[in-house]
Amino acid sequence: MKPLRIGLAGLGTVGIGVIRLLRENAETITARAGRPIEVVAVTARNRTKDRGVDLSGLRWHDDAVSVAQDTGIDVAVELIGGAEGPAQDMVVTALERGLPVVTANKALVALHGGRLSRLSADRNAPLLFEAAVAGGIPAIKLVREGLAADRLESVGGILNGTCNYILTEMRTSGRDFEEVLAEAQARGYAEAEPSTDVDGWDTAHKLAILAGLAFRPLHFDSLPVHGIRDITAQDLKFAKELGYSIKLLGLSRQNPDGAPDGTIEAWVRPCMVPAKAPIAAVEGVFNAVSTLGRFSGPMTISGRGAGEGPTASAVVADLIDLARGNAIPVWGRQDVPAPVACADLAELKSAFYLRLDVQDRPGVMADLTSVLRDNDVSVHFVSQHDAATGGAHLAIVTHQVPEKAIHAAATALAALPVVTGKPLVLKIEDLVP
Amino acid sequence: MKPLRIGLAGLGTVGIGVIRLLRENAETITARAGRPIEVVAVTARNRTKDRGVDLSGLRWHDDAVSVAQDTGIDVAVELIGGAEGPAQDMVVTALERGLPVVTANKALVALHGGRLSRLSADRNAPLLFEAAVAGGIPAIKLVREGLAADRLESVGGILNGTCNYILTEMRTSGRDFEEVLAEAQARGYAEAEPSTDVDGWDTAHKLAILAGLAFRPLHFDSLPVHGIRDITAQDLKFAKELGYSIKLLGLSRQNPDGAPDGTIEAWVRPCMVPAKAPIAAVEGVFNAVSTLGRFSGPMTISGRGAGEGPTASAVVADLIDLARGNAIPVWGRQDVPAPVACADLAELKSAFYLRLDVQDRPGVMADLTSVLRDNDVSVHFVSQHDAATGGAHLAIVTHQVPEKAIHAAATALAALPVVTGKPLVLKIEDLVP
Repeated sequence: MKPLRIGLAGLGTVGIGVIRLLRENAETITARAGRPIEVVAVTARNRTKDRGVDLSGLRWHDDAVSVAQDTGIDVAVELIGGAEGPAQDMVVTALERGLPVVTANKALVALHGGRLSRLSADRNAPLLFEAAVAGGIPAIKLVREGLAADRLESVGGILNGTCNYILTEMRTSGRDFEEVLAEAQARGYAEAEPSTDVDGWDTAHKLAILAGLAFRPLHFDSLPVHGIRDITAQDLKFAKELGYSIKLLGLSRQNPDGAPDGTIEAWVRPCMVPAKAPIAAVEGVFNAVSTLGRFSGPMTISGRGAGEGPTASAVVADLIDLARGNAIPVWGRQDVPAPVACADLAELKSAFYLRLDVQDRPGVMADLTSVLRDNDVSVHFVSQHDAATGGAHLAIVTHQVPEKAIHAAATALAALPVVTGKPLVLKIEDLVP
Repeated sequence: MKPLRIGLAGLGTVGIGVIRLLRENAETITARAGRPIEVVAVTARNRTKDRGVDLSGLRWHDDAVSVAQDTGIDVAVELIGGAEGPAQDMVVTALERGLPVVTANKALVALHGGRLSRLSADRNAPLLFEAAVAGGIPAIKLVREGLAADRLESVGGILNGTCNYILTEMRTSGRDFEEVLAEAQARGYAEAEPSTDVDGWDTAHKLAILAGLAFRPLHFDSLPVHGIRDITAQDLKFAKELGYSIKLLGLSRQNPDGAPDGTIEAWVRPCMVPAKAPIAAVEGVFNAVSTLGRFSGPMTISGRGAGEGPTASAVVADLIDLARGNAIPVWGRQDVPAPVACADLAELKSAFYLRLDVQDRPGVMADLTSVLRDNDVSVHFVSQHDAATGGAHLAIVTHQVPEKAIHAAATALAALPVVTGKPLVLKIEDLVP
């Protein structure tokens, strides 16, 4: 049987994992794919570095574009990363040649998916990216194939293991964000430049892809993105007391209550999720994706969202699909849908958690509640803890209110002399209907 | 675009769900499949019954084989059920014609998968059965495609919603099996003849399919199957106290510890699973499938395992795959692997839970523990509750012992005059390594 010949750019953890997996499981993979799958050409910045696997016999190229131009390969695998530069150049070069592409590059697909999906369709060159969302979890296959028959109402979940690890550590140890982040960086669980993870951008890229598969591709610039820097250990204590878990969620919903038909709600932000929701139990570096379908109902899949083994498993699953002759259009549809802007959240209603740090003196509660009343924010529940530094922490849970009302109230509250520090607003997201 | 024309046998809940889903989501399904999917021919026992959907314009056939012989269809969909009879006749007739088949029939695939997979391969006629395992959860796609690159160590889970509902109700209400079963029957959650569900056969059919995809097809007759009839409300109380949940599991494992290479362990039985395992939180009629892969690590997917909507979603996802031209061989391999017998459990080691109902008198514990010692069963933990009827319930948790030792001990204990009723042995299954 003629092997499927792979040209691979990027020999970091995932690239080496792909080579190792293809060799270790060669017999099974050949039986499943119907033919052998072999890496024949590579490129990486350093040719001489010892990567722990035998790279002899592979054709070395000077750059990724040169790999994509190699006439002796059947598939280009891009594992360089970054939405622009050599990663994009390689993918475009390969697709233009009509060569199938497999990538783990979430930023590339999230930001340039529109152009790349048209190119893929024009040249009849499949572009597969299972590893771009939730690592080893076949989230893309789940949404684009497994739930292809259904009309999804929402899709999303815990898409960044670094943030979930930090929030889990903060909760179990009672320590604050900066301290846990520093430790995570020392252990290699967080990057030296942590913004992509902790400010929500990595989650945003993955969510944009999931929303594109479930509903319509999104204008990425219209996606509201907030990270986890403002969460305190005190918020995690309040959450537990109130029966919630705090999770950084990326979520997209079609036709949210009260919005015009065709509206796509999408956002990335830390939320309070009910402790009984399947996603609330997903801890540490694990990821999870939940869907709610009109026919299929609620579904949740959890597993390892990153790392050499899981990501390599997803990349090679795409290669097996290609070898089997299975290739789904980028957005799962024969047409290439035009992107849409995410809904303005101001008018959408939700319950919210509002945490205020206040001076502890008579009449505070009356001042606060009158501001909430003036902003039409109806209060469901209030809890108070003494602060270690004097003063008090207040947790307020609201009834359903338009998002603009809670933000107006928070701004007004921040201006009160009794309120110290910046109020924190978290959406309460009842994933399970 | 030429529609994909469906001939459908069986107009029960699922059959009607398929027709309803194809109509309600016609626009999206056409975009995703690349062509319309339309039911054109049907058969069912009763032609005149009002099923709540418009069936005018469909060709009616006298029987399922006649549907499979209809030259105006592109795919035969079998939703009759039963491993033999018209269901099998229809599937064989269609495959022999070279016609693709979609079925939700777990018994048919579990018992006759060997013969049907050879026929499917010989005639180049795909046989898809996503709906046969875990309803709306794309468990087959997960294992056969999403994890195709990986070497799985184990696969299994909660595969029968009726049993999980009964165990959940028993735990939350403190009532015993017979009472909860009767209520479930009255509510329509359990069949009048409940044996297929509560004795584990439905789970066994689904597990045999999953094991066939992950490892090798099994000789179904060699699969050890036990149901949930022996579980008491007292066992569920002990489980909670010990930090476990009792779940009816179907599980298969490749190369279990200490067994010769190539061994497939597989069984269906109620187990104690750690309360922190993702599967322990899966309650009521929900199903869940967990996998453990050498590269992908642990993964769990949960959702609705039965019902009109979820099952129809899975059937139509298969139809979309066919319309897209994607068809995977039955066992996910180009070759048709020969079936193997499940490992003899006698020599495999595990920790066990042993529940004894005993007379409450001096020296009982000494009698019991000497029997355990004589059978080389090493005890980790003992707990005792007074029984409402006098006497006591004892829960014993063992260290790792060969399964034959715990059964020998249970038999010896049952013969003691102080032991009233039949001892219960449950495997303690640490799904999460």
